[in-house]
Amino acid sequence: MFKPISENEAKGKVKEIFEEIKTARQITEVPNFWKSLANNPETLERTWTSLKQVMKKGALDPVVKELIYVAVSITNGCEYCIKSHSLAAKKKGATEEMLNEMIAVTGMANETNRLVEGYQVEVDEIYK
Amino acid sequence: MFKPISENEAKGKVKEIFEEIKTARQITEVPNFWKSLANNPETLERTWTSLKQVMKKGALDPVVKELIYVAVSITNGCEYCIKSHSLAAKKKGATEEMLNEMIAVTGMANETNRLVEGYQVEVDEIYK
Amino acid sequence: MFKPISENEAKGKVKEIFEEIKTARQITEVPNFWKSLANNPETLERTWTSLKQVMKKGALDPVVKELIYVAVSITNGCEYCIKSHSLAAKKKGATEEMLNEMIAVTGMANETNRLVEGYQVEVDEIYK
Amino acid sequence: MFKPISENEAKGKVKEIFEEIKTARQITEVPNFWKSLANNPETLERTWTSLKQVMKKGALDPVVKELIYVAVSITNGCEYCIKSHSLAAKKKGATEEMLNEMIAVTGMANETNRLVEGYQVEVDEIYK
Amino acid sequence: MFKPISENEAKGKVKEIFEEIKTARQITEVPNFWKSLANNPETLERTWTSLKQVMKKGALDPVVKELIYVAVSITNGCEYCIKSHSLAAKKKGATEEMLNEMIAVTGMANETNRLVEGYQVEVDEIYK
Amino acid sequence: MFKPISENEAKGKVKEIFEEIKTARQITEVPNFWKSLANNPETLERTWTSLKQVMKKGALDPVVKELIYVAVSITNGCEYCIKSHSLAAKKKGATEEMLNEMIAVTGMANETNRLVEGYQVEVDEIYK
Repeated sequence: MFKPISENEAKGKVKEIFEEIKTARQITEVPNFWKSLANNPETLERTWTSLKQVMKKGALDPVVKELIYVAVSITNGCEYCIKSHSLAAKKKGATEEMLNEMIAVTGMANETNRLVEGYQVEVDEIYK
Repeated sequence: MFKPISENEAKGKVKEIFEEIKTARQITEVPNFWKSLANNPETLERTWTSLKQVMKKGALDPVVKELIYVAVSITNGCEYCIKSHSLAAKKKGATEEMLNEMIAVTGMANETNRLVEGYQVEVDEIYK
Repeated sequence: MFKPISENEAKGKVKEIFEEIKTARQITEVPNFWKSLANNPETLERTWTSLKQVMKKGALDPVVKELIYVAVSITNGCEYCIKSHSLAAKKKGATEEMLNEMIAVTGMANETNRLVEGYQVEVDEIYK
Repeated sequence: MFKPISENEAKGKVKEIFEEIKTARQITEVPNFWKSLANNPETLERTWTSLKQVMKKGALDPVVKELIYVAVSITNGCEYCIKSHSLAAKKKGATEEMLNEMIAVTGMANETNRLVEGYQVEVDEIYK
Repeated sequence: MFKPISENEAKGKVKEIFEEIKTARQITEVPNFWKSLANNPETLERTWTSLKQVMKKGALDPVVKELIYVAVSITNGCEYCIKSHSLAAKKKGATEEMLNEMIAVTGMANETNRLVEGYQVEVDEIYK
Repeated sequence: MFKPISENEAKGKVKEIFEEIKTARQITEVPNFWKSLANNPETLERTWTSLKQVMKKGALDPVVKELIYVAVSITNGCEYCIKSHSLAAKKKGATEEMLNEMIAVTGMANETNRLVEGYQVEVDEIYK
């Protein structure tokens, strides 16, 4: 339905953010995700601003944040998100071993989440 | 439907695993999750064995694994899982600040996952 | 927001369906699910008609259908659905052992579904 | 596993519904969704009847209903559903601007849903 | 784990946003959602700013946006979100009839989404 | 990111499990799922062991277990899982009619799950 907005078509605010993305990520081409969001410049700007804030170094390392991001994307089954953020995780220092372990935890959490629902486990006092 | 199996009712394999859980976790009472799984001793044993293996220290720190676990549980909306593993994360060293940031990443990932679906974003060559 | 429509308030089409539900299920009180749907008589009628058709004996046994129903509800984390259809499964002949095994399969399927997403496994030729 | 039933293969009830779909939607070819459901004529008939009833003009405009439909499909990550109902929305009058805003709301709702789970927010009295 | 930050405890940025929320929503008490987010002032500010932008009148009416929001929350099974945004929808003019129809569409979309997955329906040329 | 480990590359534990899979399933080539898991030999071994235990004949027939497995995979939208386990179900004796009915139940359960959430239906006493 929506076509990605190419760098040539980008104007004003969109063009600015495209430039900022390329500089910040040290890439030569704007990824399809951002080109698609450009269909709604407000969403493009809001998402880029939020993502920068949320994924920056804080109490958690950026690589840990990327791993959490991929774990959520695996749970939601979003192919683009899994692939792009797995690469981002690697660029920030994640090893294959770390990704392997993250996948194992994600699989296991999804299993035990359903065991909890299946048995309708009541919350213990100590967890309240 | 299923009632948790109390420590008094536990026999054989179930009793053994209950003891192991208390020792490993340094707690004095078996949590409801494990008491519920005891309705199916095979599931109890398999889950305990798997969880120990998956959550142990490896390339990722146990605290990072717990944060990933909670992020998945938030995405699935499993209250028991969120509460019990948030506590586990804290016991292993997670600070409130770390939990706050993990929640922010989890929320953001869930938003952008849907932006990707909404715009049906195609995977860029560099991510393949 | 919506209050269940009590049997006393029910009129016309709604009253008729309430009676039919009690007779078909051999119960003396209409469950909250149907009382809630009665806020939209069209949804009440359509859902009751569909459910009767879908859950009736066919190539699959009604008890197998109830087990599938609960497995889906566990995956979606719908408490009411898990509880009411676990009871329905039992009434139709499901044993605790069968329910235990269904929960184990449901947990396992949720884990492996995410391993597939995590590793982005490509469909083998033989499965196409 | 299942192959779509072509219009040539269609017989009896299935053939009738295929004709009705083409007339109602003013299209010259039956979409794959309906051809696939034809593997189970009961499901085909029930779904067509339900969809007509649910999506018709009522208190809500058909275009609003299509937007809600797409929002749910985005949340579930169903490509076919997103694409076919985005087109349906457009045919019924949705503009690109409306679709852009619907996607933004859908993304946002998915984020805040997880913030609520992450912080385990208790329901305020006024919302009960 | 996290306790809501009361209005008395609120300081600086948090206090300001709390005041703004009460004024904008014409309420006398800050809802638990915002009190909980206040555990992470950055998340509080970012979410409040985003929500105002996304939910404001645009090509879509605010009441339609609230209905979409609730539809997503129903799909995710988030009780707080369903309850608080159903009330918001009503305040902005949604009738019970409109809510009833939105729920019907949401249920139906979730059913057909799974029929599409079950039959692995291929995207028709006209939807590409 | 991860490439499947081919049978030629497989060594030690991985090679052993690959052989066991081919013998148990009476197939001449290891499916991509297992080749992908081989990136993490611990996950490969644990998953194979668990799957054998969970899917074996018990109170439930293996074909019923496969149907439950597919129902969950449809709900999660996992293409590989739907396709591979639909074939497994057929090999174990599932007919097209049985698969058709399983899909109908899965769709219906997903609809009613959301009707329950939409109306926020309270659990009846008899289901507790």
